[in-house]
Amino acid sequence: MQIIDGKKIAAEIKAEIRAEVENLAAAGKRRPQLVAIIVGNDGASQTYVAGKEKACGECGFKSQVLRFADSVGEAELLSVIARLNADEEVDGFIVQLPLPQHISEQRVVEAIDPKKDVDGFHPTNVGRMTIGLPAYVSATPAGIRELLRRYRIATSGKHCVVLGRSNIVGRPMANLLSQKDTPGDSTVTMCHSRTRNIKDICLTADIIVAALGQPEFLTADMVPDGAVVVDVGTTRVPAADAKRGFRLKGDVKFDEVAPKCSYITPVPGGVGPMTIVSLMKNTLRAYKKEVYG
Amino acid sequence: MQIIDGKKIAAEIKAEIRAEVENLAAAGKRRPQLVAIIVGNDGASQTYVAGKEKACGECGFKSQVLRFADSVGEAELLSVIARLNADEEVDGFIVQLPLPQHISEQRVVEAIDPKKDVDGFHPTNVGRMTIGLPAYVSATPAGIRELLRRYRIATSGKHCVVLGRSNIVGRPMANLLSQKDTPGDSTVTMCHSRTRNIKDICLTADIIVAALGQPEFLTADMVPDGAVVVDVGTTRVPAADAKRGFRLKGDVKFDEVAPKCSYITPVPGGVGPMTIVSLMKNTLRAYKKEVYG
Repeated sequence: MQIIDGKKIAAEIKAEIRAEVENLAAAGKRRPQLVAIIVGNDGASQTYVAGKEKACGECGFKSQVLRFADSVGEAELLSVIARLNADEEVDGFIVQLPLPQHISEQRVVEAIDPKKDVDGFHPTNVGRMTIGLPAYVSATPAGIRELLRRYRIATSGKHCVVLGRSNIVGRPMANLLSQKDTPGDSTVTMCHSRTRNIKDICLTADIIVAALGQPEFLTADMVPDGAVVVDVGTTRVPAADAKRGFRLKGDVKFDEVAPKCSYITPVPGGVGPMTIVSLMKNTLRAYKKEVYG
Repeated sequence: MQIIDGKKIAAEIKAEIRAEVENLAAAGKRRPQLVAIIVGNDGASQTYVAGKEKACGECGFKSQVLRFADSVGEAELLSVIARLNADEEVDGFIVQLPLPQHISEQRVVEAIDPKKDVDGFHPTNVGRMTIGLPAYVSATPAGIRELLRRYRIATSGKHCVVLGRSNIVGRPMANLLSQKDTPGDSTVTMCHSRTRNIKDICLTADIIVAALGQPEFLTADMVPDGAVVVDVGTTRVPAADAKRGFRLKGDVKFDEVAPKCSYITPVPGGVGPMTIVSLMKNTLRAYKKEVYG
């Protein structure tokens, strides 16, 4: 059994990006710039945005956080987005979700120029990814794909069971792994809350991607010997003895599942660190105009 | 075993559309208009476009076919598309594929305003469909969904095996049937040329959608008793005794599979007639601005 070290791979990729950016800077070119918009004071959102800013620093990117009060109007937010769309020194930007109820997340996401949509949430990027065209792929599935690639995990012809059908993890993961690509070419089964016999299906898997957001959902009796298990869960479970008052719990009962696996990602330190790195990669691709030319 | 009569359902839907359009016309409103662009002399393309024109007539639509020689330049085609995008009396239009080698199909498809892309091939429509937003869904999967709906075939919690991962049938079908929707909420497995154990997977299916384009691929030994089988194959197999010199063959070995099924679509007369009808429905939706407002 090998633990997939997302933290180590993430550090390697950030170092690769940093080297490329320093070369650009040494050649007198401007640095890539990522802008994050954050509305309100949600704790998790603050943490994520701080993490993104830190990663920008590590990659040698310029970064900016635009903070708005909960009371900001949708029209104001849309005008900020229009300004960022037009700003040639902003390569990519993200709007941290969730947004307050009075703002339409869909309208906000669709207002972002797909060329700068480094989160990959705009329908145009989702569509391009779905049909196999160059696209910004949302950070978590892109990060998982990179882990599979760097650990040289065979996916072609394998049965990959994706637990969860969310628009930002399960569904894009299923669409990516079934593409004619490497990693890819998997037979993919997407399971969700309505699936009747998840255990039986998991027992036929070569690769299981658990992205249900249900702590310790995947137990040892559901996992065949030698499977590759990717744990996307990051539920905050209250824990009085933890420094921050909670612990991150994955969707996999790690202690009992790990011994059965050929490869497994831990939580934390597996998929999580790759997510932010994927955003950095997308920003660099936006800077280099790799997706839309 | 019940045969799903696509021809009958298609006729019903065309009558429904016709009634709605005649009401509009009686109220002094203009009729919906679909325009088809066809390049060159491909026999199958000519047949499809003729079928679409005929269906427009049956639905009370205005229709136009714009014909171009094989030698037409991409720039000329793009300028025609720009004109149709701007024409307020054209509700939807399609460019019949394939196009000659010197024209980029992708560039042509992406030039179509998603609001008029009634074939549902533009990445924006694919993306919107994938994430569950209102969208023009490509004609074949939309037609299959309509057959499932009209025959009240339960899909929630069922295991649906989709054979084929094409961008116009297999992949959208898998994305649609796994959506939180009715029909939908299926557990979906997408199989393709790299899948190792198609037979075993099919034997666990409640619903099989065969869209590989391989005549008589699905045989009785692959189908569990009581399955619903949807045959998307329409391969032209040469037949000296047939009037047109060929016969349409489905992906299902109908004679031996049908007795095992609860429902099955025949070829011809199953999915085929629904395909054109879906295009008519999309055109009416475009006229009513149901998707993009």
